[in-house]
Amino acid sequence: MKLTPKGMRDFSPEDMLIREEVIGIIKQIFRSYGYKPLDTPVMEYLDTLRAKAGEEVDRQIFVIEDKEYGLRFDLTVPLARYAATHDEPKPFKRYAIEKVWRKEEPQRGRFREFYQADVDIVGSDSMRCEAEILSLAKDVCSAFGFKKPRIILNNRKILDGIAMKLNIEDKKGEVFRVLDKLDKIGEKKVAGMLDEILGAKSKELLKIIKCKGTNVQRLKLAAEYSEEGAKELEEILSLCNFDIEIDLFLVRGLGYYTGPVYEVKLSDDIGTVIAGGRYDNLLHVYGQSAPATGISVGIERLITLMSEKKKSVKKKTYTRLFIAAVKPEFYKDAIKIAAEFRNAGISCETDLNMRNLRKQLNYANVLGIPYAAIIGEREIKEEKVTLKDMVSGKEESLKIKDVISMLTR
Amino acid sequence: MKLTPKGMRDFSPEDMLIREEVIGIIKQIFRSYGYKPLDTPVMEYLDTLRAKAGEEVDRQIFVIEDKEYGLRFDLTVPLARYAATHDEPKPFKRYAIEKVWRKEEPQRGRFREFYQADVDIVGSDSMRCEAEILSLAKDVCSAFGFKKPRIILNNRKILDGIAMKLNIEDKKGEVFRVLDKLDKIGEKKVAGMLDEILGAKSKELLKIIKCKGTNVQRLKLAAEYSEEGAKELEEILSLCNFDIEIDLFLVRGLGYYTGPVYEVKLSDDIGTVIAGGRYDNLLHVYGQSAPATGISVGIERLITLMSEKKKSVKKKTYTRLFIAAVKPEFYKDAIKIAAEFRNAGISCETDLNMRNLRKQLNYANVLGIPYAAIIGEREIKEEKVTLKDMVSGKEESLKIKDVISMLTR
Repeated sequence: MKLTPKGMRDFSPEDMLIREEVIGIIKQIFRSYGYKPLDTPVMEYLDTLRAKAGEEVDRQIFVIEDKEYGLRFDLTVPLARYAATHDEPKPFKRYAIEKVWRKEEPQRGRFREFYQADVDIVGSDSMRCEAEILSLAKDVCSAFGFKKPRIILNNRKILDGIAMKLNIEDKKGEVFRVLDKLDKIGEKKVAGMLDEILGAKSKELLKIIKCKGTNVQRLKLAAEYSEEGAKELEEILSLCNFDIEIDLFLVRGLGYYTGPVYEVKLSDDIGTVIAGGRYDNLLHVYGQSAPATGISVGIERLITLMSEKKKSVKKKTYTRLFIAAVKPEFYKDAIKIAAEFRNAGISCETDLNMRNLRKQLNYANVLGIPYAAIIGEREIKEEKVTLKDMVSGKEESLKIKDVISMLTR
Repeated sequence: MKLTPKGMRDFSPEDMLIREEVIGIIKQIFRSYGYKPLDTPVMEYLDTLRAKAGEEVDRQIFVIEDKEYGLRFDLTVPLARYAATHDEPKPFKRYAIEKVWRKEEPQRGRFREFYQADVDIVGSDSMRCEAEILSLAKDVCSAFGFKKPRIILNNRKILDGIAMKLNIEDKKGEVFRVLDKLDKIGEKKVAGMLDEILGAKSKELLKIIKCKGTNVQRLKLAAEYSEEGAKELEEILSLCNFDIEIDLFLVRGLGYYTGPVYEVKLSDDIGTVIAGGRYDNLLHVYGQSAPATGISVGIERLITLMSEKKKSVKKKTYTRLFIAAVKPEFYKDAIKIAAEFRNAGISCETDLNMRNLRKQLNYANVLGIPYAAIIGEREIKEEKVTLKDMVSGKEESLKIKDVISMLTR
């Protein structure tokens, strides 16, 4: 018995219906904003991957035997490598909805192979980019029925300014990693860990980043630590006609962010599904400097949510019609009629197993095909089919053109 | 400078337009026949891959570091592994259009990462399967403008029968590999190589498999070597209302074929683009026996053909409209108007780089966006836009709803 590789999944035709629907919706939104597809090899030179990976991710790379290549662990590395070595008109707006691989210990809801859905903009340092991306993120939430997402915004420049003023710059990396764990381990544990790293300064830090009040009040405080950072956030707010929450606690773990960072939660109780930030220095690593910003949509999370929601109304197949010949000698008529339906854009199947009518209809039923067109002597003589509604069981004698107009309207 | 891995390719947004079009056409045909998508991990256990690979392909597997896994070299292995370990209703008709990897020395038109497009049927031994698959193959040719493809059909059972009668069964594998080289090295060289392997019997073999005449005559000869094999081909012919050529010379290299094998050439001068055959014993290797048959569509070849054909009329982007604000203070109006267009299903972009009007229009032009909607003081007051046709240069003052109906009709 050969198995699916550890921590990876086969997606059955039934799984694919919901996956393709979710991917289709997201792709359509990405395109509506003018983002363009880019397809890169699944593997990159190990050097290319390691230039961005960081210690933890580095250990998770699936390395190819000769140690020249590894499988990509995200979609940002291939984008940065591509954009730094090709002269696409700027701003270069690309989307990618592709698989990535990480050799982690598999856990509930975490896999070694999974899809990411990213949009990025390379070649503009304007806050218009952030405003556009947040608007797109809001459209994604909306498309999945979440009209009031929680959008949270901060700026690394503000965090850097705070670290400088508190004179804790040498411990910045460590501190940011701890702050980033808020959602996972809660504020109390975060505070405890900060105490260990910063001693007395930990309280001071928490007081600043936990500041309450309106966005205006928070930005006023933020401006004391980075005028530029606060101004950028103000500009983003001014370009967005929807609710955004300034939260000085927000870090986003990745080391390479340099400016605004953001998180989108579908609702108060569902965690972060979309997140991203500005990374103006990453492309430099690949040989050509350019400002860049982008987000990743947690598509696996959305698919899980959608399939739970749709359990009861699950469509089981793309096929609309099963053409059943009553006897084997009518099979040639069945395939002729099938061709007519296909020409009209209707997906249909015929019986490939020489089965009797009952077994054919049973197969159509198991597959969830909604209609069967039955063909016997009388039907052929009258140039009609007997159309059976597989749910209600109702039968009706119809001309092929009438079945076509019924199924395509 | 970080590069694309050896023998692999980045597909730019422009490349993707043609690739997505070709893949979309093929997917639509696959679905119209009721084939269902299946998505499996890019890697499989090495044992799973090696059970089918054969000596040459085995060397080409990209092995993952710990030697537990390798990247798939075709889409048949994952299908066979999946079908043998899952209880999908039979016949299980699946399609897959996915990447595969082979560590070959890269040559012109041959890459280490490439797409395959396969349909397979698991769980039926009826020749109805072959008839359906050939009809589907013909539809694929048709969709790409090749109305008269050359469809060539043989049966491994006939070749086996010939080998038995000539008493050359011990050299069968070697002989088949040589016959399979006909297209590459020509008949004269094939004959020479056969002489070396078979001596005097080589002439006898060639006489049989080169037999001329009508399909009926060829099948009559074939029946002398395998009645069953000839009968199967007759049945396929009887179910197909288009031209098929019986050719006893046709082998198809792969060792695991057990019944009908076929090749489809788009036209007389373009080589084989679609090929396949029946492999009733392969699933047994993965723990559960079931008859199976399927084809692979040479999608990379089709993409090359289509891009050569379309060079002159190449569409450059999915984006239909660029919204240009005359001054930065109108940018907020621009994004509001962009949202209206997106809601109407029209892909559009706004300026993310704070550029003046000339530079914005230049960007739209470079990207090949066909229309620009210009927004200034007058337009905002009149609730209109100035629509510029980027090809003719013509400008027109229009209400947004009129632009929408123009671009969506």
